Amino acid sequence: MSAAGDGTPFTWAARVYWEDTDAGGVVYYANYLRFLERARTEWLRARGVMQQQLAVEKGVQFMVLRVAVEYKAAARLDDLLAISCEMRPDTRTTAVFAQRIWREPAAPGGRRELLVEAEVRAVCVDAKTLRPRRIAEYIS
Amino acid sequence: MSAAGDGTPFTWAARVYWEDTDAGGVVYYANYLRFLERARTEWLRARGVMQQQLAVEKGVQFMVLRVAVEYKAAARLDDLLAISCEMRPDTRTTAVFAQRIWREPAAPGGRRELLVEAEVRAVCVDAKTLRPRRIAEYIS
Amino acid sequence: MSAAGDGTPFTWAARVYWEDTDAGGVVYYANYLRFLERARTEWLRARGVMQQQLAVEKGVQFMVLRVAVEYKAAARLDDLLAISCEMRPDTRTTAVFAQRIWREPAAPGGRRELLVEAEVRAVCVDAKTLRPRRIAEYIS
Amino acid sequence: MSAAGDGTPFTWAARVYWEDTDAGGVVYYANYLRFLERARTEWLRARGVMQQQLAVEKGVQFMVLRVAVEYKAAARLDDLLAISCEMRPDTRTTAVFAQRIWREPAAPGGRRELLVEAEVRAVCVDAKTLRPRRIAEYIS
Repeated sequence: MSAAGDGTPFTWAARVYWEDTDAGGVVYYANYLRFLERARTEWLRARGVMQQQLAVEKGVQFMVLRVAVEYKAAARLDDLLAISCEMRPDTRTTAVFAQRIWREPAAPGGRRELLVEAEVRAVCVDAKTLRPRRIAEYIS
Repeated sequence: MSAAGDGTPFTWAARVYWEDTDAGGVVYYANYLRFLERARTEWLRARGVMQQQLAVEKGVQFMVLRVAVEYKAAARLDDLLAISCEMRPDTRTTAVFAQRIWREPAAPGGRRELLVEAEVRAVCVDAKTLRPRRIAEYIS
Repeated sequence: MSAAGDGTPFTWAARVYWEDTDAGGVVYYANYLRFLERARTEWLRARGVMQQQLAVEKGVQFMVLRVAVEYKAAARLDDLLAISCEMRPDTRTTAVFAQRIWREPAAPGGRRELLVEAEVRAVCVDAKTLRPRRIAEYIS
Repeated sequence: MSAAGDGTPFTWAARVYWEDTDAGGVVYYANYLRFLERARTEWLRARGVMQQQLAVEKGVQFMVLRVAVEYKAAARLDDLLAISCEMRPDTRTTAVFAQRIWREPAAPGGRRELLVEAEVRAVCVDAKTLRPRRIAEYIS
């Protein structure tokens, strides 16, 4: 389940731009879900799964069933974020993704700060009928 | 806690526009959090609380600590949504909002369809120091 | 071309929420295009044209070819906006929408402030082939 | 004005995710402005200008005055985009950015496809007073 095969979870980087922030001076609470999805999409891509292709060629897509997010500290404009993604098998047709978002240190040698912890439950479905499909057929 | 004083929760309407949808043909999962926030903001406004004014005059704002969302059915372009908001007292400085999103019936006499159930926990803070403040001082 | 038939352009209202703003404390520059589109969509709806239905039943949709926006003053959180939409015939398959966004006065008797002037050129196309279609067949 | 000093304009990469698309199956027209801004922000960063720092330390920010965008072809989910940014001096307090967005070829050896051409005029202002400031003091 690791990108490197060494127990380190898969991690994707994202920069905070103006589009992500709100008038409170920090990232808007809904926009962390965009960062979480980018990491899940790249986690899939690292396994050779392109969702556009999956939809067109196999008629299969993922639908989010449940999201739980804990906001521990706020990201700000220009922050560099690291977003992790680990898949935990759930039922045959669903998966649970455990994800975290950190702020990278401003200076080398600094420490990452944990900003967000999230759990996302998704189901694999036939794009037309919305009937559940076995995840193992598409992600290995 | 009711808009009408008769036990019916406060409800706000929103239309689904192109901006809310994604290539799956439905509302993007993060964008339901925008609808939820609109309803919380209007719930506050119905109590005479304008957040821009609260921030400028009292130096106070709300920060979301936790969001849990269950997606039961998907909203589509042109759907008319109803978003409810009920506040449940939590600690002296935090509140929990129980919220739901329904699709209004396409034809008169039809029934609302429940799309989303959510729980949002927020804290009232001093905008500068981020120190918690008593909610009862600002919302009655 | 008027909603009231008296020369007044069609106008739609929108409130500025947290989702619309950025860390500069004002509405993010791209998000005015969302307000513009809502007004075009409601302008169509006032003529009985529902885009979701148009796409599904007639296989027709509109694509934006060109946008020009002048930003004159910034909208802020909690502002109430009025967005106008006037269609100017262009070619048989294209239309130009002249649009404006105003801030409604904070107090009764005040004056609207012009925030944005925009011109949007769109083409009517077959959703599958992207071939241009005659606009007059769908909008009257 | 070039990243490489050889006449090639500065270019930044971006991937198209679900958040960027709409129910038409393509990138929502307003969201190209987010890609354009990312490239301007990175163009500034390549010159050592961090906007968050500029705002906090110098009390200076950029405001967009005018945007003109031509949409030539649509970007889709999973597309890899290249966004260019070239600054053309304008008045002492304003600058014009000429920008383009291309789709990178799906296979090596393929050709980039031009999707968007844009021109963005911005002014450098004092964040508090909104009075214009000389751009040359902050960008070299």
